[in-house]
Amino acid sequence: MCGVVGIYDKGNINAANGAYYGLVALQHRGQESAGIAINNDGIITCYKDMGFVNEVFDDKILGLLKGDMAIGHVRYSTSGANFAANAQPIVIKYKNGSLAISHNGNLVNADLLRNQLEDQGLFFSTTTDTEVIAALIARNYKGDIIEAIKKTLKTIKGSYALTILTDNKLIGIRDGYGFRPLVLGKLENGYALASESCALDTLGAQFLRDVKPGEIIMIDKDGVKCFETEDIVPKKVCLFEYIYFARPDSIIDGISMYKARENAGRILAVEQPAIADTVVSVPDSGTPASIGYASESGIPYSIGLIKNRYVGRTFIQPTQSMRELGVKLKLNPLKENIKGKKVVMVDDSIVRGTTSRKIVQALRDAGAKEVHVRVSSPPVIGPCCYGINTPTREELIGARKTVESIREYIGADSLGYLSIEGLLTAVGSKGEGFCSACFNGDYPL
Amino acid sequence: MCGVVGIYDKGNINAANGAYYGLVALQHRGQESAGIAINNDGIITCYKDMGFVNEVFDDKILGLLKGDMAIGHVRYSTSGANFAANAQPIVIKYKNGSLAISHNGNLVNADLLRNQLEDQGLFFSTTTDTEVIAALIARNYKGDIIEAIKKTLKTIKGSYALTILTDNKLIGIRDGYGFRPLVLGKLENGYALASESCALDTLGAQFLRDVKPGEIIMIDKDGVKCFETEDIVPKKVCLFEYIYFARPDSIIDGISMYKARENAGRILAVEQPAIADTVVSVPDSGTPASIGYASESGIPYSIGLIKNRYVGRTFIQPTQSMRELGVKLKLNPLKENIKGKKVVMVDDSIVRGTTSRKIVQALRDAGAKEVHVRVSSPPVIGPCCYGINTPTREELIGARKTVESIREYIGADSLGYLSIEGLLTAVGSKGEGFCSACFNGDYPL
Amino acid sequence: MCGVVGIYDKGNINAANGAYYGLVALQHRGQESAGIAINNDGIITCYKDMGFVNEVFDDKILGLLKGDMAIGHVRYSTSGANFAANAQPIVIKYKNGSLAISHNGNLVNADLLRNQLEDQGLFFSTTTDTEVIAALIARNYKGDIIEAIKKTLKTIKGSYALTILTDNKLIGIRDGYGFRPLVLGKLENGYALASESCALDTLGAQFLRDVKPGEIIMIDKDGVKCFETEDIVPKKVCLFEYIYFARPDSIIDGISMYKARENAGRILAVEQPAIADTVVSVPDSGTPASIGYASESGIPYSIGLIKNRYVGRTFIQPTQSMRELGVKLKLNPLKENIKGKKVVMVDDSIVRGTTSRKIVQALRDAGAKEVHVRVSSPPVIGPCCYGINTPTREELIGARKTVESIREYIGADSLGYLSIEGLLTAVGSKGEGFCSACFNGDYPL
Amino acid sequence: MCGVVGIYDKGNINAANGAYYGLVALQHRGQESAGIAINNDGIITCYKDMGFVNEVFDDKILGLLKGDMAIGHVRYSTSGANFAANAQPIVIKYKNGSLAISHNGNLVNADLLRNQLEDQGLFFSTTTDTEVIAALIARNYKGDIIEAIKKTLKTIKGSYALTILTDNKLIGIRDGYGFRPLVLGKLENGYALASESCALDTLGAQFLRDVKPGEIIMIDKDGVKCFETEDIVPKKVCLFEYIYFARPDSIIDGISMYKARENAGRILAVEQPAIADTVVSVPDSGTPASIGYASESGIPYSIGLIKNRYVGRTFIQPTQSMRELGVKLKLNPLKENIKGKKVVMVDDSIVRGTTSRKIVQALRDAGAKEVHVRVSSPPVIGPCCYGINTPTREELIGARKTVESIREYIGADSLGYLSIEGLLTAVGSKGEGFCSACFNGDYPL
Repeated sequence: MCGVVGIYDKGNINAANGAYYGLVALQHRGQESAGIAINNDGIITCYKDMGFVNEVFDDKILGLLKGDMAIGHVRYSTSGANFAANAQPIVIKYKNGSLAISHNGNLVNADLLRNQLEDQGLFFSTTTDTEVIAALIARNYKGDIIEAIKKTLKTIKGSYALTILTDNKLIGIRDGYGFRPLVLGKLENGYALASESCALDTLGAQFLRDVKPGEIIMIDKDGVKCFETEDIVPKKVCLFEYIYFARPDSIIDGISMYKARENAGRILAVEQPAIADTVVSVPDSGTPASIGYASESGIPYSIGLIKNRYVGRTFIQPTQSMRELGVKLKLNPLKENIKGKKVVMVDDSIVRGTTSRKIVQALRDAGAKEVHVRVSSPPVIGPCCYGINTPTREELIGARKTVESIREYIGADSLGYLSIEGLLTAVGSKGEGFCSACFNGDYPL
Repeated sequence: MCGVVGIYDKGNINAANGAYYGLVALQHRGQESAGIAINNDGIITCYKDMGFVNEVFDDKILGLLKGDMAIGHVRYSTSGANFAANAQPIVIKYKNGSLAISHNGNLVNADLLRNQLEDQGLFFSTTTDTEVIAALIARNYKGDIIEAIKKTLKTIKGSYALTILTDNKLIGIRDGYGFRPLVLGKLENGYALASESCALDTLGAQFLRDVKPGEIIMIDKDGVKCFETEDIVPKKVCLFEYIYFARPDSIIDGISMYKARENAGRILAVEQPAIADTVVSVPDSGTPASIGYASESGIPYSIGLIKNRYVGRTFIQPTQSMRELGVKLKLNPLKENIKGKKVVMVDDSIVRGTTSRKIVQALRDAGAKEVHVRVSSPPVIGPCCYGINTPTREELIGARKTVESIREYIGADSLGYLSIEGLLTAVGSKGEGFCSACFNGDYPL
Repeated sequence: MCGVVGIYDKGNINAANGAYYGLVALQHRGQESAGIAINNDGIITCYKDMGFVNEVFDDKILGLLKGDMAIGHVRYSTSGANFAANAQPIVIKYKNGSLAISHNGNLVNADLLRNQLEDQGLFFSTTTDTEVIAALIARNYKGDIIEAIKKTLKTIKGSYALTILTDNKLIGIRDGYGFRPLVLGKLENGYALASESCALDTLGAQFLRDVKPGEIIMIDKDGVKCFETEDIVPKKVCLFEYIYFARPDSIIDGISMYKARENAGRILAVEQPAIADTVVSVPDSGTPASIGYASESGIPYSIGLIKNRYVGRTFIQPTQSMRELGVKLKLNPLKENIKGKKVVMVDDSIVRGTTSRKIVQALRDAGAKEVHVRVSSPPVIGPCCYGINTPTREELIGARKTVESIREYIGADSLGYLSIEGLLTAVGSKGEGFCSACFNGDYPL
Repeated sequence: MCGVVGIYDKGNINAANGAYYGLVALQHRGQESAGIAINNDGIITCYKDMGFVNEVFDDKILGLLKGDMAIGHVRYSTSGANFAANAQPIVIKYKNGSLAISHNGNLVNADLLRNQLEDQGLFFSTTTDTEVIAALIARNYKGDIIEAIKKTLKTIKGSYALTILTDNKLIGIRDGYGFRPLVLGKLENGYALASESCALDTLGAQFLRDVKPGEIIMIDKDGVKCFETEDIVPKKVCLFEYIYFARPDSIIDGISMYKARENAGRILAVEQPAIADTVVSVPDSGTPASIGYASESGIPYSIGLIKNRYVGRTFIQPTQSMRELGVKLKLNPLKENIKGKKVVMVDDSIVRGTTSRKIVQALRDAGAKEVHVRVSSPPVIGPCCYGINTPTREELIGARKTVESIREYIGADSLGYLSIEGLLTAVGSKGEGFCSACFNGDYPL
């Protein structure tokens, strides 16, 4: 998971500020590294480092990044071995200029393409798919950047939402399946691109529309031009954006994340009813579905777990002697709403099952009479190949165990998942338009 | 506002860890500075600095703080002029040993006492009330620490919840009015004191009971002993702890913060009804009251504002050209739930009115048809003398304007405050036991 | 060892800058902590922390320290256990105002005085002698600060060079023996005090004269006034200032540090001649004496050891497998000047002997035919009670071994120390005026 | 100017430590950025950042860099605009593996080569010459790395001392002119390469020999193999290494830096005599020549300027009101040795003249009767194209002014430079073997 932004703000040499605010709004999509590339009259400069957006950038560094076109990137934590080498945006200099690229997604044929390019004598400075894309665009360039991009897109397979900075253009691209979101907004004197509409709100742009799957948006001094890639494939938007990843105040392809989650909760209440005194959420991501579940079921919604907002990445781990504190440092049950009650605990998904198990135990310690776990998505049975950092199949509890044995493992009195059909209904689909590979193994590529 | 903890964990030389986790849980009570004093076989060492608990302490520093008795402190941001000089705990060395003190509260006669002590030839290293308390205890000590404390408490006037470390004891004290909370918990081999019960949960202690107003708790190798100060005064617990300050998962004097706030919302719905489509909260502090308001009124509760969890202290402020972003960096309206609707927006209090004004505007920008602001506490008309960092009377909008002109200022369609009676009912009171000075000018001292 | 400065620069609200530059020039006297206290219209503010002067202070912090009177302090590394608690200046608030004190030296009756004050009901926030001095001045104050100081000086025994800030005065004091240096300089609109004259050069003041032993210098809006303490004691200036501590470009009591060291080298050449091809120095402190030795003996001076200027406090220590690197990381022999030669290696002193041993070995590894060690001071046989952080008697190789067995330990072909008489001659003395306690056990107090 | 190291230490997975110590010894060659690439069983990982070696690396980071082959790099401060993007080593991944390269020097045909490569479809991630070299080696690779390197070296023109890490080899290369130095040393179980011999001393390797101009040294599990590039060109070692850059304890091409500088001072004394009382050095780089000058002229050498060892990169600049402090913060005259004397001030070179002017003034302020400036190298009349970061011709005072008008500008009583012949004699040359382009415009390429 990553987040991308792009800013074309004619005449505003502080376009990096817009990128900064956009990245802050997209911080939930990646906390490992952050970077901004800026175009100052054709000269592209890039600053990136490990850390949160507000750790990587300060007034002084933003002040050095002058230019009216910018792209930015936040990256999800992957392996730490390579230090900052794989942080984005990726910048390359080639015969016809420079390119900076921010990429959210994952190519399934990156190794093959990399090998082909290396066979042609190319070399790479990173191990990212993004550099492969940059290399292909540079090689395919024969005087028309859109042609170069179109030719490149025919070669690469996988998921990608891209923002690209050339010597005089900002370009946004979304793959033909539309796995990853990308939206277009209007600035007073220009345009903005971002992974989610919430970033447009934050950086002060007006939402115009989603970039369409298979669409190339080109922004320069002459305004916006749109191009379509030739091959038409069925739309396959990632369902996990709707379940968990995107911010609830974002709207992707016309669907509100909040509403989709609330709907999922409502349908879950119908599919997986429970007899209980209260519905509580695992904050923050489970809250919209909890509210939907409560509303549909008529069981009162209440706050059952308090999240410590100050517990972040750098906290010292409890020592051996405090091991049992476990989940309580981050989530503390609100006894008043739990004690003596039959509780429906709604979460958005179960991945490994370890956290759910600790929370169920914490609720029981707080006096819950019964704990009924309801999950607003189906069991995850396979890894994602399109840009989400899921654990291996072995670690996915949904791939290894039946619902009953998961229930037993997490210690719940009952356990109910939303069906795929229910989920599709929640997002307004009639069974198509979405990638459900991780739920049913139906991989689009 | 500050938070205090105390740990007596016999034989565990890492008692500082318990203090650390307790302070993490109390971080909401003070973000300016953090400190821990540790007693290692009678030698008291203290480490404190400006910053969040996890910025001030790391593994290395905690590793240097060896000892089985500890106290800790987090301080709310006051004036920055004095750098770290006024951070707590305060440690003094006197004739009969050492004292470390953490203090939540405010003495109203501190200047007088300080002058008297200076007249007697004493000098001070800080400008804190806490050092005055330490000086008095040291001067009053004639071989019995409890006698010295009792004598001291007769002299000092104001609010105080204290944790004190002597050469061989941990002591907790709550002033006779009980303005500030303090709770006692049980560790496997000892005891813990903390401003709020949520800290006991986090550091792994079992809640035993509140320290009573006017009670002195002494913990040493022989266990716990309790003493009462002689003068009996009416209990005057701070209402703002219930409205806003304390964490919702804390229980103070037998009352759940969450429940008090939910009750306040319910009573508010009766006192200040509204005709609307949805009830939304100003997160996070307004949420329990919103849920209560929605439940009582029958108007559906929904999430109307999304808080960016990554926006904290160190964020770069929007530049001139982005000024209008204002509140959106932190709070973004969830259009789906707002657009075209009559909205009840519930907040816990209005202090200056400036933030409320921006949020109302943001809701209108998001398409709200009407915005009815409901506040789950009465108008604040006076500053606090007992430890809460309120603005001056001139800045308090409730002290300067009528409800109608506040409504006009913040741009709401209607505005309704909870009555004092309603608030007292919400916290389970029959009109007594609480300090309501900031709402009605009835200052206890 | 510590360094102190004081600035009275009428109308210049950036007097802290002068203190900063002065402390930078005195950094060699203390690298553990640094601090500056500033007087802004009677309000004294202090900022201090662990670290080098340029680590503790930056533009932002200096910018906050506004006022035209300042004192500063750098402290030598002592025990790390107390964190920043003992950093100086020490600031106290008492009945008649505030006092900030910077102290270089050591009281021999501090514990006694502290106990007496504690018996009178006083308490302390640090374990420093300096706070004891502050407390005594505060207690002795009856309307005349000079009287209070005079009375205090009658009570305290030991070494002290002090700079003091009161509500409207800057005061400098040197103890009656004059153990520690203190000089007075002229600013365009005021005066400056500093441990060494090099600090006056650096902060832009003109050297006026040494503060005399037993003198109190008071600087305020009316100019400079001088007072003498009543008791006349023989002058006992610390010889180690001349041998090693003070910077070679400083002049103390009319004697140039450089010249004293060069003289010591000359006399050493007479007292302890050697037949050799070259004289080399242990940089940087041994260089002036080496030049003197070479000049007097006629043996050519050359550079024999190159010091890595980038190796400082924070360097990673060589791992086990690189242990043998030892001294080479800091000092590398210059083979060209060593190989095949009989070498006189001149150092200013030998304390534990471990470093000398390593350097002798490094010179032999570089091909020295013979290594004759000459030391420009006598063997150190006792610890210092007056402010120098010498090791215990057990660690002092001069206290435990004969010259012959020291020679054997360090692996030199011959070893010769300067005599006390020679050292006194080098500093221009006829046998009096200096403290030689660490060389002959003749402790003045 | 840069410094490079290479370590092949069979079976020692902490080879990065050796690189670290080597870089510390070479810190004088570059303070802007530092980096180490490590080969762990064929996997190359690189860590690099802006800052001093001990700022970039700490125990934790070195601990992550596991492998028994390493190269390292320190870079001189050039333009700050590109942030860390151009820090070295450069690592690329190509068809046949990976390459890491550290480069000291400058290619004169880099732009041409880059354009040619870009015409062939290649792209670049940095603007360094080093990446061009890496690209050429990768493209020329047909199964034999030495052939690929030989072919590459035929193409590139300019100065280069390189250390290269391949999947299983450490390679060192010095250009045919030998502009930049490179030495080979022996470790217990391997070999080390470094820009200067002082780095071998520091990292614990035994000096074996210089890498010869035009030589390729290949180190792998089978030991060391040496190759020669085909084209034989006259040796043109950079004279500035001998005058200023290299550490005095380094030996390059059989000549001791110290001895060369001392010789230069001796010859300078003959060419440019002076009637004076003392010879003083501008520390540290002017010291060996000063000693030579003093020795040859018979005028006594003394220390005339004391350098503050604590004044480094991060010091706060004197404010407006302290502007006159100027040079004194770093260099303070030692009045004792200056006052009333005719002084010969020896420096290694004059570049812009501004610093010399300030020092002459400081010496006069200290009471010098006359100041005779002697420079142990000829006037610099042209910029360097081979890796030294000289100012533009306009800024070079030697290119714009006559010796007499330089004398006038710097305010000296007399000024004398060493002749080119004198300098060549000092380094043991009979007129050939050295690059003197910056002194006489005779550019080898």
